[in-house]
Amino acid sequence: MATTDIPENTNQAAVLKPGGSFYYETREAPTIQSDQDVIVKVVATGLCGSDVHYWQHGRIGRYVVEKPIILGHESSGIVVACGSGVKGLAAGDRVALEPGIACNICEPCRAGRYNLCRDMHFAATPPYDGTLCTYYRVPVQCCFKLPTHISFRDGALVEPLGVAVHACRLGGDMQNRSVVVFGAGPVGLLCCAVARAFGAARVVAVDIVPSRLSVASKYGATHTYQMTSASPEENAKDLLSAAGLEDGADVVLDATGAEPCQNCGLQAITPGGTFVQVGLGRPNVSLPIGQICDKEVVVKGSFRYGPGDFQLAVGLLEANRVNLEGLVTNEYTFSQVEEAFQNVANRVGIKSVIYGPEVEAEMAKAIV
Amino acid sequence: MATTDIPENTNQAAVLKPGGSFYYETREAPTIQSDQDVIVKVVATGLCGSDVHYWQHGRIGRYVVEKPIILGHESSGIVVACGSGVKGLAAGDRVALEPGIACNICEPCRAGRYNLCRDMHFAATPPYDGTLCTYYRVPVQCCFKLPTHISFRDGALVEPLGVAVHACRLGGDMQNRSVVVFGAGPVGLLCCAVARAFGAARVVAVDIVPSRLSVASKYGATHTYQMTSASPEENAKDLLSAAGLEDGADVVLDATGAEPCQNCGLQAITPGGTFVQVGLGRPNVSLPIGQICDKEVVVKGSFRYGPGDFQLAVGLLEANRVNLEGLVTNEYTFSQVEEAFQNVANRVGIKSVIYGPEVEAEMAKAIV
Amino acid sequence: MATTDIPENTNQAAVLKPGGSFYYETREAPTIQSDQDVIVKVVATGLCGSDVHYWQHGRIGRYVVEKPIILGHESSGIVVACGSGVKGLAAGDRVALEPGIACNICEPCRAGRYNLCRDMHFAATPPYDGTLCTYYRVPVQCCFKLPTHISFRDGALVEPLGVAVHACRLGGDMQNRSVVVFGAGPVGLLCCAVARAFGAARVVAVDIVPSRLSVASKYGATHTYQMTSASPEENAKDLLSAAGLEDGADVVLDATGAEPCQNCGLQAITPGGTFVQVGLGRPNVSLPIGQICDKEVVVKGSFRYGPGDFQLAVGLLEANRVNLEGLVTNEYTFSQVEEAFQNVANRVGIKSVIYGPEVEAEMAKAIV
Amino acid sequence: MATTDIPENTNQAAVLKPGGSFYYETREAPTIQSDQDVIVKVVATGLCGSDVHYWQHGRIGRYVVEKPIILGHESSGIVVACGSGVKGLAAGDRVALEPGIACNICEPCRAGRYNLCRDMHFAATPPYDGTLCTYYRVPVQCCFKLPTHISFRDGALVEPLGVAVHACRLGGDMQNRSVVVFGAGPVGLLCCAVARAFGAARVVAVDIVPSRLSVASKYGATHTYQMTSASPEENAKDLLSAAGLEDGADVVLDATGAEPCQNCGLQAITPGGTFVQVGLGRPNVSLPIGQICDKEVVVKGSFRYGPGDFQLAVGLLEANRVNLEGLVTNEYTFSQVEEAFQNVANRVGIKSVIYGPEVEAEMAKAIV
Repeated sequence: MATTDIPENTNQAAVLKPGGSFYYETREAPTIQSDQDVIVKVVATGLCGSDVHYWQHGRIGRYVVEKPIILGHESSGIVVACGSGVKGLAAGDRVALEPGIACNICEPCRAGRYNLCRDMHFAATPPYDGTLCTYYRVPVQCCFKLPTHISFRDGALVEPLGVAVHACRLGGDMQNRSVVVFGAGPVGLLCCAVARAFGAARVVAVDIVPSRLSVASKYGATHTYQMTSASPEENAKDLLSAAGLEDGADVVLDATGAEPCQNCGLQAITPGGTFVQVGLGRPNVSLPIGQICDKEVVVKGSFRYGPGDFQLAVGLLEANRVNLEGLVTNEYTFSQVEEAFQNVANRVGIKSVIYGPEVEAEMAKAIV
Repeated sequence: MATTDIPENTNQAAVLKPGGSFYYETREAPTIQSDQDVIVKVVATGLCGSDVHYWQHGRIGRYVVEKPIILGHESSGIVVACGSGVKGLAAGDRVALEPGIACNICEPCRAGRYNLCRDMHFAATPPYDGTLCTYYRVPVQCCFKLPTHISFRDGALVEPLGVAVHACRLGGDMQNRSVVVFGAGPVGLLCCAVARAFGAARVVAVDIVPSRLSVASKYGATHTYQMTSASPEENAKDLLSAAGLEDGADVVLDATGAEPCQNCGLQAITPGGTFVQVGLGRPNVSLPIGQICDKEVVVKGSFRYGPGDFQLAVGLLEANRVNLEGLVTNEYTFSQVEEAFQNVANRVGIKSVIYGPEVEAEMAKAIV
Repeated sequence: MATTDIPENTNQAAVLKPGGSFYYETREAPTIQSDQDVIVKVVATGLCGSDVHYWQHGRIGRYVVEKPIILGHESSGIVVACGSGVKGLAAGDRVALEPGIACNICEPCRAGRYNLCRDMHFAATPPYDGTLCTYYRVPVQCCFKLPTHISFRDGALVEPLGVAVHACRLGGDMQNRSVVVFGAGPVGLLCCAVARAFGAARVVAVDIVPSRLSVASKYGATHTYQMTSASPEENAKDLLSAAGLEDGADVVLDATGAEPCQNCGLQAITPGGTFVQVGLGRPNVSLPIGQICDKEVVVKGSFRYGPGDFQLAVGLLEANRVNLEGLVTNEYTFSQVEEAFQNVANRVGIKSVIYGPEVEAEMAKAIV
Repeated sequence: MATTDIPENTNQAAVLKPGGSFYYETREAPTIQSDQDVIVKVVATGLCGSDVHYWQHGRIGRYVVEKPIILGHESSGIVVACGSGVKGLAAGDRVALEPGIACNICEPCRAGRYNLCRDMHFAATPPYDGTLCTYYRVPVQCCFKLPTHISFRDGALVEPLGVAVHACRLGGDMQNRSVVVFGAGPVGLLCCAVARAFGAARVVAVDIVPSRLSVASKYGATHTYQMTSASPEENAKDLLSAAGLEDGADVVLDATGAEPCQNCGLQAITPGGTFVQVGLGRPNVSLPIGQICDKEVVVKGSFRYGPGDFQLAVGLLEANRVNLEGLVTNEYTFSQVEEAFQNVANRVGIKSVIYGPEVEAEMAKAIV
């Protein structure tokens, strides 16, 4: 194993107490455990709705905050140590992190669907700690070198970009097709951007908040539609009319989890179309199963990301096929964790990042 | 064009009046219109839930009985005339009919999905007449020669068998997999049979009526489960336990359209599994979208049948890989149309057939 | 049927005599035969290797020029008459033509693979006449409106672009992948352009003629490689090294039909990669079947184009995702047919077009 | 780690010396190295053409016998020790072994194609030792419990059955299709059996040796065809005629690697058909690329087996959907290794197995 130069007891962490408040503590730094391990100094961590949900509600479905946990899983950083078997990566490299460590040997893993791993260790999903700390250990296959023109700050967006890539891939061939994306938050906007990069002729961003829609054209949307309180059928009709899609939408991605959006999407979809559920909301919703049958719609759940998704996300950035500029609207130092969470909960801005304990903001914005 | 020897005005028909009663009338016999046309003397017609629904409610969704219509679309018969371009078929041939005539030139048709044809003429779907009459005209591609050991009576089951084949194909690879089928009516039982023929290691038939389940093992089911009034989660747990499926079901086919079944199925399905909606019920239902996401379930609507489905249905019969014996429980002469519909509405038996105007029951049961 | 205003006996045609010389004659103009028919005045026709092959050799495989035939199948033109059932197209519309008329009812047609139609009538494939004439009749589904910024001259390239689209689709997902294209003639260059539009990170154009390679970067190639007389293994190694592809090429498209290229491509391809044979050469070649096995390569033949290919080709032009500028290097009037064929046989320029009998060159280059 | 009760220095092995002769030696027994490891006492090992090829020629392609190696990779045995993390398997269990140990972390592994692993340790492929010894260590995912009615002797056939399953899966949907299998050796016969189990309506076994064809009907073949010295076109015509396949064969599997068979198969295949290369022969062969193009044939290399193939192989046995009875024609004790290899080289019988050092033949044939 390679010697790591990380001094012991230098791992500062923002820890969520069960019940809902954060405290800071210094922990032992992680060490190289296997020859494929990499230790990364975390530079920037984006906040996700799930982080905020754990803070506010203490659980998501069957995952419960039962003991103190470090949140955060959308991170970029600098490699500080590598196991002896690590190839193609060295201390000093700037990377984005894939925050899930799959077992690699269960049936879904071996079949190429590691997001369905039966023993996944996913950052910031209880009981596994996340990345709001100084150092984090991952296997080498979870590290993706950042393109030189992507800052650490924007590198924290590689994870949600991976979510969008995974969802768009599930949407199937998008060349010259029409794609409707419900939700103009970070994931929805990135879905728009990826759909456009994947060749969609029309990308319709849909939201209820006009200010969100107003930025969508910077991220791939060719049309926008503001949902009204009318019926799903009415909204679908108006949406299709606004986007000039008389035959219906080929692909619908829902990044809201909101029943009116899901229903509007299924009304708007063309026969033979594909509907991808990206964002989660309530566990149960009313859906127009009659439409799904009559039109032979394929409805797919999209869960995190799998083989090749991060590579493709980074490739899209490398080739400037996706633009992240302006998506990070709010930046916080490591001492402002609670404030950051509060602002996200209040829906301030588009995407917020928290810099690591040892990071100056200037560095985070720098490229190369 | 070939000369047809059908005397004029010999086409007896059972016609449904808007409002809900049947009357008999004699119409002009159909004639060969294109060189690919075939005239078939109808021998047996199975009754489908949709036929009964039109009779009772006058509409299914946007399809409304606005003027008199002939119902019936699950038919077998004898070829009586062929257009000059027809190859491989001759007068006297025993055939099953595919009751949808696609336009063949719209985008879905050209792309190999003619069940989504934009100008489909489907028998017994308003405004198109069905097969409860003496003679019926279809293009040659809608005629499928019956295996010699399949009677006309059982040949009327080729259509629902085509429905089952289409749905099972949408379920994906079934080799050595576990398949759960909700609903043990004709379509559900045929889905069990096809799933088993497709190599499923376990086929679980689910229903609320024990008597229906009791016959399921004759049609491919390896296990049965009787739904209870417990929650979908409880039912799913019990179902999986009863069938020895600790990892969940690989494929679920719902042939009920009933919300409790759909929810039980989505709870029981394994991560990465496929759920196919075969039967229709209410247009909107509450579904566990959280499960669909977390497990990346693929939910597919199954609508009628498409390229190759009838060929495969007949192939399964030809090779004795699907057994129809005993599925037709009730037989009616052409004069008993109203009685037949009433009995089906009362859920008498499994499948009912009505023989054509000129058919003796003995002939219908005969093979070759 | 719509009345067409085409005077009789105004259809001038350049006809190939069996044995190999052209003569001009005036034929009856085509008339609307079905309500879906469209009559097009041909403006520009590109010459294809197959046209020249029929002229020089009188046959391609089992297709033999046994009686006089009109060649030409890469055409653009103006709609002059439409059948009564034609929707979305009107006299005066500028269109590209898909030159194959499928039967729409055979098994491959119904299954969505009309390029494998058992009764295809393909322009300029004996015994069916091609488009080197004044007027040509096709069904409406063979007409594709030209984008307003695409001239008739360049519109003749929609057909080879359709070939490239079909081949690239067979290549599978190209997002962020590496694609090697053998052959930098019209089809090879268009394959480069489509592969790049489909998201390929690297597109390597390969040829033996440096001048051909020199234009490849205008049409999507990110790298070029000039084949040498070394072994396929050596060429593959050098090619991969030149393009920085240490793990091999993800997709290989061969548009040469030349054995050294095919072998180099199969040596260069990565395990699990896809090889598409686009261009034809000799009917039998020596291939490294050991490589195909060890690397589980998928080798696909690409034949013409199928559902959606022309729509996508036009969509790529509409969105300026493929650039045709400069591909047509040689233009001929209708009186220069023999000269045009001779020059193509001598490999003059990239793509040659012949204008229709009634076309002034100025008009052909005009847009809108 | 679990304590293993294997005495040291009890691992007898038959070792191949570079140059081509076998010697016996006693080695240290393998020990549990990871908590997922399993030690198996080898009971029966089938001989494969590749084993014999290493013995006779010292290499297969780039794999060279440079130092002494233990051959054998088609084995069944008894579990004697398990690592502490092993679930679902215990000492005494009867298992078939999957002989390749993939790295699980390279890109192909993570993408679900571990047969293309970049760091595969495959038994009896230099430099990795095979199973002709007393004890062998594999990770738990390489152990598959034998159905109780399958003897150890026949359990050695699970590996070639896995090869056949993998190849047939690559062949695509076989329901009601026609499948032609070239080669009636062990792999070819098992391909016939799997194709039939996968629902093929017609399975044509092809060979040049009548005695081989005579057993094919026991293993799924519905028709046989004896290749003649005529041209591939003639053989294809005669084959299709003999099997009543006027439209060509839907799927062709070549388990010979012989050029005449490959060419006959590609001539006989239907447009849109799939050709799978299973067996290897010469590294380069002449193939009818014109046929591949015109008919849009998909040619796939099949390499070993991947996710789910062994599970399915065992499932087919469990359900009696594949019959192994009679395939093992020759049995040898561990002291007869050289004789066994010699007989296989002389093409004696169908499949030969060598029993492990501590195995009595009676035990090997016993079930449960």
